[in-house]
Parts: sequence; structure tokens; C-alpha cells
Amino acid sequence: MPTEIRTCLLPLLSEPEDYSGSVAVILDILRASSTISYALNSGATAVIPCEEIEEAQQIADELKQASGEEVLLGGERMGVMIEGFDLDNSPARYPAETVAGKQIVFTTSNGTRALKHALQARRILIGSFLCLDAVVNELKKSEGVVYLVCAGTDGSVTGEDCLCAGAIATELQNQTDQELVLDDSTRIVIDHYRSQIQHEEGVLKGIRASLGGRNLIRRGFEDDIRLCSERGLIPGVPEYHHQSGTITLTTGA
Amino acid sequence: MPTEIRTCLLPLLSEPEDYSGSVAVILDILRASSTISYALNSGATAVIPCEEIEEAQQIADELKQASGEEVLLGGERMGVMIEGFDLDNSPARYPAETVAGKQIVFTTSNGTRALKHALQARRILIGSFLCLDAVVNELKKSEGVVYLVCAGTDGSVTGEDCLCAGAIATELQNQTDQELVLDDSTRIVIDHYRSQIQHEEGVLKGIRASLGGRNLIRRGFEDDIRLCSERGLIPGVPEYHHQSGTITLTTGA
Repeated sequence: MPTEIRTCLLPLLSEPEDYSGSVAVILDILRASSTISYALNSGATAVIPCEEIEEAQQIADELKQASGEEVLLGGERMGVMIEGFDLDNSPARYPAETVAGKQIVFTTSNGTRALKHALQARRILIGSFLCLDAVVNELKKSEGVVYLVCAGTDGSVTGEDCLCAGAIATELQNQTDQELVLDDSTRIVIDHYRSQIQHEEGVLKGIRASLGGRNLIRRGFEDDIRLCSERGLIPGVPEYHHQSGTITLTTGA
Repeated sequence: MPTEIRTCLLPLLSEPEDYSGSVAVILDILRASSTISYALNSGATAVIPCEEIEEAQQIADELKQASGEEVLLGGERMGVMIEGFDLDNSPARYPAETVAGKQIVFTTSNGTRALKHALQARRILIGSFLCLDAVVNELKKSEGVVYLVCAGTDGSVTGEDCLCAGAIATELQNQTDQELVLDDSTRIVIDHYRSQIQHEEGVLKGIRASLGGRNLIRRGFEDDIRLCSERGLIPGVPEYHHQSGTITLTTGA
């Protein structure tokens, strides 16, 4: 059972060693975390997160040569597809017919960087509203400190990541017998979540109004906001494996 | 009338130039902002904020020689009085019999640094629960962007500063005819404030539970928490003046 929840409102508010021994949950709701969840739920065999474009291209080439399997390159810079890549960062682009049975090498501006920042964590889960219940179930089985890491947008705190951190913290506290130690940032995101879910549309209104939501609407990706706010759609949790450098779906069995 | 409220949850989340043209409100509720408010309300003629101890000592010496007036040195490092100083950072140490008619050279770990970080702002107010209503009245008369700057504690986000930012943003929005543009951090602190004031004790419970509150209780300064949470006790607003480098009370006349 966990004893403590800490929330990092932006990666730069933490040092890599802060994560040591914890279970970290990376939250880049619009859209990296959600898109990784969709991809794995659609049958992608693994997602390989990379910080840099060149690194992603090189790893994709190596994987193709080594395995002979089909490998897709996905991700974004400034919210749009990277030249020479197969897929952008929209979850709608990752259905089974596109990704099933394939590995996806993936790089985004904020989410993959937040993950790399938290590499000293004992376990690294990728959180989203889509796999909220599965994440909470997985965290309930963990020990010690849970670290909720909001990826933010280009160095700014974003409401949608804080909202999901608040949702996970609220559910984890509600479903745990003992009182968990909460840091101030966790208390703040819990209050934000509790306030936002009082709206008729639930979290959707808050996500639309957030920095990430406004950016997506401006770029014509409004449909993605709904796709990323479907609570509990996915029964597993994407988990990063330190040794292989891959993210696969942990089904909590 | 202001058009926009931005909240900076920690100074390091902003660049000095972000403040250009705005009205900044520095929030270090436990205790620099509150203590400065008490000191000026007790009749201190000015508070001179300094980042470093040596700088404070030098300025105090110069002021004494130049004016012949009595000058007090106040502030803290690690929450306790600085060797050779006259006063620590407890508002209880700044009654009229101690400070009336005197200038106070003041240095603290977080609050004075947050102020110096925001020096490019057009106006700089020192906010607290004590002068909440006066701050809101002053902001209502301003134009453009209001920047709420949470000082935090040694690089960590602290609930008490966020709570006061939420209080100011809530009141300013409520008392303004038009819809203000709010960034995500402002929305989050508003939700935090609205949630916390539902407790029977109002903000006091939230301040006690905050990082700053827990630190003060541990150091034996629990009474200060109550002193710093008295809403609207002080009718003026401490304001920093760029040219003189001093903070004096603006009474809103």
C-alpha cells in the first residue's frame, strides 16, 4: 500500500534523484500519455519513447534491420507531425488497423522528456484518464511514494495534466484504508479536480479550457480532447521498462 | 480595469521579462508578506527589502549615518533570526512600540527574492490575507495584466501562497464586470481557495496544513499562522517603489 503522494506540477520543479525509489506516473494528457495508451490498447507491441528526433529515427532503423518487423515512427514537434514520420501525436491515428503487431518509436515535446526526467523511479507508469482506474489499481498495490509528474506544455503548468493528477490522487486516497501523506501540490490538484468534476460535462470542460486544450482547438484537433478524456476506456496501464527502454501494457493480472 | 490574471506558482517558473508592464503581487504569506504588512501598519515609515544579509547590513549602516534616524534590521534565514539583526520574521515582533517611525531593512529567504525577480513589473504590491481587500481594490483600478507571484519555500510550491493567490483571483474576478482571462495556474489556485474556504475555520485549516504552516508549527511559531490569516485586518497595501527601493503603505485614497 502506498504511504505518500507527491505531485510535480512541472518536471523542472524536481530533480532526477527525487524520484529514486518511487513509483512515478507520467501525465501528458494532451496528448502523449493518451496516445501511447490508445496505441498499446490497439495492439501495438511496444512504444519506444525517445527525446530527440534523430535518436528516434536511428532506433527505428536499427529495429527494422534487427527484427525485420514493421516499425512506425510517431510523435510531434510544436503539435504537428515530424517530417519523415509515419504518424503524428493524435490518438485517432493509432487504431488497430494501423498499429496492431507493430512497434512504435515515439517522440514528443513534453511527455517523453518528462519520462526521461523521472528515470530514477523504481517503476514508471504512463497515466491518463483513459486508464485512470487501471493506474489507481496498480498504485494501490505499490509501496512507498507515488510521484505524479505533470509534463506541462513547453515549461508552463497545464490544467489538463493537473486535473488528471488530481483525479488519480483523489481516487487513490479514497480507495486506501489509511490517510496518505500529501504534499501541497497534491492537495492543490485534488481541489482542482474536485471543483472541475462538479460541471455537467465532468472533466471535459476543464480540459477544453486548459492551455493544452486551447492549443489543440486552435490547431483543429478538438476531437482529440474528447478521445483523451474518456475515463477508464483502457483496462491496462502503459508501463516503461528500464532495461528494454520500451513501454508495454501492464494488465494488472 | 484589469483584463487578465496570471499566477506564477514559483518564481523560477517565470522569467524577469514576463512581468514587464504588469502589476505584480508578491505573496509570501508565511511570513514575509504578512510581516511587512504588520510593520507598516504599526507605523514603520518604510521597509527596504534586500536579497543578501551583507547588503542589508550595509544599507542599514548607510541609512543610520545619512539620516540619523533609528533603523532596524529584520528578517530570517532558515526561519530563524539572523545574527546581529534586531528582529526575526515573526509579525508579532513588529508592534508600534518597536517599529513606529523607524525604517526597517529586511531580508528573507523567499519573499524578498521573489520581489527582486519581478522587478520589471510596472507596479509591485505585497499581498497577504491581512490586506486582501485593499489589494483587490488596488488591482481593480489597474489596467492590463495582474501577476500573482507565489514565493514558495526554498523552491517548493507552498499551499499558503497558492491559497492567497486563489483568494485574490476569486475576489478580483467576482468584483470585475467583465470576464478576466485566467491562465491555468490561476484556475487551479481559484479551485484550491474555493475548496479550502468550505472548512469551518476558513483558510486557517489550509494554511496550517501547508508546507509553510507545518514548518512554522515545528519551529514553535504556531501563533504566527493565526496572525497571518486575519483577513482584511490592514486597510492599506504595501507597495514597492522602484526609484527609492522602499516599500511603503498605499492607502488607496
